[in-house]
Amino acid sequence: MLTVAYDGTAYCGWQLQPGKETIESVLNRCLFELTGETIEVIGASRTDSGVHALGNIAVFDTDSSIPAEKFSYALNRRLPEDIKIRASKEVAADFHPRHCESIKTYEYRICNAEFPIPTKRLYTHFTYVPLDVSLMSRAAAYLVGEHDFKSFCSVDTQAQTTVRRIDDVEVWEEGADSIKNAAADPNAYTGNGKAPQTGREIVIRVAGRGFLYNMVRIIAGTLMEVGRGKMPPGRVKDILEACDRQAAGPTAPACGLTLVGYEFLL
Amino acid sequence: MLTVAYDGTAYCGWQLQPGKETIESVLNRCLFELTGETIEVIGASRTDSGVHALGNIAVFDTDSSIPAEKFSYALNRRLPEDIKIRASKEVAADFHPRHCESIKTYEYRICNAEFPIPTKRLYTHFTYVPLDVSLMSRAAAYLVGEHDFKSFCSVDTQAQTTVRRIDDVEVWEEGADSIKNAAADPNAYTGNGKAPQTGREIVIRVAGRGFLYNMVRIIAGTLMEVGRGKMPPGRVKDILEACDRQAAGPTAPACGLTLVGYEFLL
Repeated sequence: MLTVAYDGTAYCGWQLQPGKETIESVLNRCLFELTGETIEVIGASRTDSGVHALGNIAVFDTDSSIPAEKFSYALNRRLPEDIKIRASKEVAADFHPRHCESIKTYEYRICNAEFPIPTKRLYTHFTYVPLDVSLMSRAAAYLVGEHDFKSFCSVDTQAQTTVRRIDDVEVWEEGADSIKNAAADPNAYTGNGKAPQTGREIVIRVAGRGFLYNMVRIIAGTLMEVGRGKMPPGRVKDILEACDRQAAGPTAPACGLTLVGYEFLL
Repeated sequence: MLTVAYDGTAYCGWQLQPGKETIESVLNRCLFELTGETIEVIGASRTDSGVHALGNIAVFDTDSSIPAEKFSYALNRRLPEDIKIRASKEVAADFHPRHCESIKTYEYRICNAEFPIPTKRLYTHFTYVPLDVSLMSRAAAYLVGEHDFKSFCSVDTQAQTTVRRIDDVEVWEEGADSIKNAAADPNAYTGNGKAPQTGREIVIRVAGRGFLYNMVRIIAGTLMEVGRGKMPPGRVKDILEACDRQAAGPTAPACGLTLVGYEFLL
C-alpha cells in the first residue's frame, strides 16, 4: 500500500486513459521499471484532472523481494518531482481501498486577495471578491451528517445512491493580518514595516465517508456564494432538500482541491 | 511605481539578458503593448534565477494618460499568470528604488519532511534531515545588527563594502503538529483521523538595509548546518569574524527564497 502525494497540475487525473499521462500510468510504469512485473495499481480515489493529493492510496500485488517499507524509497528515485510516495507498507492480500469503509479528508483552498498571487496560483482558486469566513462556516455546518447530496453532485454521476455522510466541515482563514493591511491600503505592501506574508487563504476542510462526483468542488462553489453574500447560510439547508444540482452554486475549479488523506475503518 | 509579485520558476531572474526571458523583459514588453512607449523599468531588487517575489518594486517614466493607480489592472490583463502587479502609484520623478534607503524583507522556506511534498517543491527547499528550529533561532540572533557580512557573500560580488545592517531575523515553523505524527508513525498519514496538513515548513525571515550577493541564501545554508547539529549556534559569531566565504555554510537553492517586500525610509 502506497501513500501517494502529487501535484496534479500536469496530469489528466488519476485514472488510466489511453494516450494520456495520469498519476496511475506513471506509477504503473515506475513499478514495472522497478520490479519487471506488469502492475496495475488500484487507487483509493480517482482524482480529477488538476486535483492534488497529499495522501492518496494505491495498492498492488507483487512477487518482488523488495521489502514493503522500502518501496517508497525505491520508487521515489524513479518518480518525477511532482509525484512522490510518502509511505509504503504491506497490507492483507484482499485489502481493496475502495471496498473498505474509510473517512477521507479534502481541503479546498481559496486565495482571497485584491490581485492574484503568482506563487499560489497552482494550488488555490483565486477570487478578488471579499469572502466572509464566518458566514461560510455557518453555512458549512448544515452539511454535517447523513444527507442526500444530490444537489452537490454533477449530473453525470453513476452513483446508485446520492446519500452520503459528512463527518466534519471546517472553514478557516490563514494569513489574514497581512491582507487586512493590504485591503485598507495597497501601499501597506511596501510601507509601515508590515510586509505581506503570503496573503489571505480561506481553507474549507471536509471529512466524510465517500463523496459524489465533484461534491467537494460544488460545496466549495456554494460556500463561496454564501461568503460573498449572494445567499444566506441557511440556504444550504434548502439546497440539500431540493435534491437538484441547479439549486447549488457552481463547481469550483480543480486546482484549489487537495485530497489530504485517508483513514481506513478496518 | 509597481509592486510586483512573481513565481520565478520559469524566469532567468529579474535583470534583462539577451535572448532570455526575465521578469524585467516581460514587464517592459507589456508596458510597450499598453502604452506604445519603449519603457525600461528600474527594479529595486535584481533577484536571481528561480527566486520568487511577493513585493519587488519597479519604477518607470511614462507620458501615458492612464492614471497611475490603474496601471496594475491594465498590466495584469496582459501579464502571464506567473507575474502580477499588486499595486501601482505615482512617485516623485527622481525616486530611484536602489538609491533610496529601504528595509527589505526576505523569507527562506524549507520543507522538512521524510519525503518531498510535490505541491511544495517549487516554493521551498526540501531536506529530509531533521532541523532543530530553536538552535537555528539562537544562531540567527548573532546576525542582527551591523556587521561585515563578507563570509555571507558570494566571492564574485562587485560590492565596495561588505558591511551591512540586518534589522531582524526570525526563524519559525509551520504545520509542525501534523509532521510530528508522521515522523513518529508514517502510517499516521492514513490513520487515527489526523490526516496531514501541508507538512512541516521552516521559515527564515530576514529584514535588512541592503543585502550582499546570495547573502540570504548563504544565511539559510548556514542556519541549516546549525539546525542539523553540524555546528553550534555560537559558530555564527566566528563565521562573521572570519570574513571568509569558506567559513559559512553552502548557498541554499534559489527556489526556497522569496522577496517579501520593501519599506522605503523616505
